[in-house]
Amino acid sequence: MRIACMLFDGITALDVVGPYEVLQRLPGATVEFVARERGEVRTDNRFLGLVADRSFDEVVAADLLVVPGGFGTRALESDDRTLEWIRELDATTTWTTSVCTGSMLLAAAGLLRGKEATSHWASLPRLADYGAVPTARRVVEHGKVVTAAGVSSGIDMALVLAARIAGEDFAAGVQLAIEYDPQPPFDAGSPDKAPPHVVERLAARYAGRV
Amino acid sequence: MRIACMLFDGITALDVVGPYEVLQRLPGATVEFVARERGEVRTDNRFLGLVADRSFDEVVAADLLVVPGGFGTRALESDDRTLEWIRELDATTTWTTSVCTGSMLLAAAGLLRGKEATSHWASLPRLADYGAVPTARRVVEHGKVVTAAGVSSGIDMALVLAARIAGEDFAAGVQLAIEYDPQPPFDAGSPDKAPPHVVERLAARYAGRV
Repeated sequence: MRIACMLFDGITALDVVGPYEVLQRLPGATVEFVARERGEVRTDNRFLGLVADRSFDEVVAADLLVVPGGFGTRALESDDRTLEWIRELDATTTWTTSVCTGSMLLAAAGLLRGKEATSHWASLPRLADYGAVPTARRVVEHGKVVTAAGVSSGIDMALVLAARIAGEDFAAGVQLAIEYDPQPPFDAGSPDKAPPHVVERLAARYAGRV
Repeated sequence: MRIACMLFDGITALDVVGPYEVLQRLPGATVEFVARERGEVRTDNRFLGLVADRSFDEVVAADLLVVPGGFGTRALESDDRTLEWIRELDATTTWTTSVCTGSMLLAAAGLLRGKEATSHWASLPRLADYGAVPTARRVVEHGKVVTAAGVSSGIDMALVLAARIAGEDFAAGVQLAIEYDPQPPFDAGSPDKAPPHVVERLAARYAGRV
């Protein structure tokens, strides 16, 4: 099980670390962090550096691809080399996945045409611009393509995948290993649950950026 | 609001990235990733490199300290320089926090004596060896010291802190920003909920390591 996690400048760290923390525990898994070039990328706010050990040129196949999101994806939607690499990997994968605005890159690469898919709630409607069917669920499976909603949803997606790949008993063990017994202090994790003024405040901040 | 996140070889990535993803959104927050020396550290399985932009010597004060866990903490429990730095920072903080086995380092540094605290479920009983009061809750607040249970619990802890620091309305907005509306596929995220054979399998794997 060879897992490729894409990195880029402007990534949201939890988008990729959530699924990674689950998927790296799969039996026989190896995980490679891959960016256009080898070396450090910085997160959306520049506070954290993550290291890409491999370049796009060095990784041309994977069993499972994770495309995370972040403010950096907006520019990459028109970056030919990135979209070409995503298509190249997808041609070899058993599973192609995204978290948050990572699905905008799958869509821009032409991989979501006519397919149900999700994204961060603030970017979800734009999936239709690329011919995808925006679907407001936390994890959306369409054949081998699995998309997750915003940021933290990659943990849930990866546990669903872990169950498909290694069985429910194993996946339950991973959930226990990461002690994923969530107790969020508010019931505000999606736009249909958060107070309207909170949704509006964030939507204004995200407008044109995701 | 100056936030210091400790890094070390053998860290569990989600332990630090979970709280970071929440706390970096606090008004006026700056986040520094700090290790014994500047440069790259590798996660518990070596698959991911995280970059420490600052060394212990360079960061001698913070408003909020995050000490994450991972298999690497076991050796650090007897590392004088690490424990000294934690004590040094704690003397300056408004909040001293840990995730997972990070609390074993707070305990080894002498900061939890007589205090309720939590940790990853597999290491929780050992907190008593350092005079702490092991407390099986997801987030435990004891004055300015806030400890979280295993790996993913740092997200919940950070949202609790965000509410204390910036108010519930702001914290609810952060929860919406990271779309934290968890839908774990199993009810297996703590040892009292997971099937007994799954708990036993993992406990055997962790024995003597955390």
